[in-house]
Amino acid sequence: MEIVQDHYPEAFAHCFGCGRLNAHGHHVRTRWVDGEGLATFEPKPFHIALPGFVYGGLVASLIDCHSIGTAAAAFAEAQGVDFADAVKEDGAPRFVTGSLHVDFLQPTPLGPPLELRAWPVEVGERKVVVESELSAAGTVTSRGRVVAVRMPASMGG
Amino acid sequence: MEIVQDHYPEAFAHCFGCGRLNAHGHHVRTRWVDGEGLATFEPKPFHIALPGFVYGGLVASLIDCHSIGTAAAAFAEAQGVDFADAVKEDGAPRFVTGSLHVDFLQPTPLGPPLELRAWPVEVGERKVVVESELSAAGTVTSRGRVVAVRMPASMGG
Repeated sequence: MEIVQDHYPEAFAHCFGCGRLNAHGHHVRTRWVDGEGLATFEPKPFHIALPGFVYGGLVASLIDCHSIGTAAAAFAEAQGVDFADAVKEDGAPRFVTGSLHVDFLQPTPLGPPLELRAWPVEVGERKVVVESELSAAGTVTSRGRVVAVRMPASMGG
Repeated sequence: MEIVQDHYPEAFAHCFGCGRLNAHGHHVRTRWVDGEGLATFEPKPFHIALPGFVYGGLVASLIDCHSIGTAAAAFAEAQGVDFADAVKEDGAPRFVTGSLHVDFLQPTPLGPPLELRAWPVEVGERKVVVESELSAAGTVTSRGRVVAVRMPASMGG
């Protein structure tokens, strides 16, 4: 699998944060590499909190979607199934965000690409917990913790 | 004071979430009424997680900016100063997000205006803690907790 979100079924590919079919969205793209989710993101000039600094709500959004992608990949690996194959058979694990926590350690400069790293700390049948960090120019500026839960029936899960 | 963000000085009015001078942003507008911050927001059709449901990253962004606005107003009130007057004298309290926590209790439907309510639970000299809830059509779908901290010198505070 190259990019986790490329394998989301079409019905789940409209997310503003990571849906490949959302023309207005951020298009977060998570690579699952050796047990970690990796992503790179280039903020737009208007994604600012103050001139020169990245907007915290964008940081939170990136951590959210990247962690959900990481959770899906980690869950598939724990189950011993190939994520892409599972999607094709409509059996892919579908997760949504139960809770999102972000610690903003220091301001994130606008300019360098943002690097995201996420790793599962708990992989259960109904819940996957993912921790993460976001860096700019080699400095970790923010840390995240996302509780990903299996999608409720009310959302189509 | 009508809208907290209308009184942010120009240098602090570029935020993607709440800056009145950011042409691409969300323009969160916080009203400080009887010790609570209130705001209403209408998501765009593309602000979705799945078709029919509001994107969690948007919910987090709204909670973030609305809580920071609420923190600034609560701090000013606790100090016994008029927020708008303080801004004019360049002495307005400036807060940034230290941490952001959101519990997504249930999916937020896309359609009705989103109503935000936020209230301070701790108002200190360097830190204000704000709790909040976001509702759609009368149902609370998400709860937030933001630790707002005085702006560090590295950001101009």
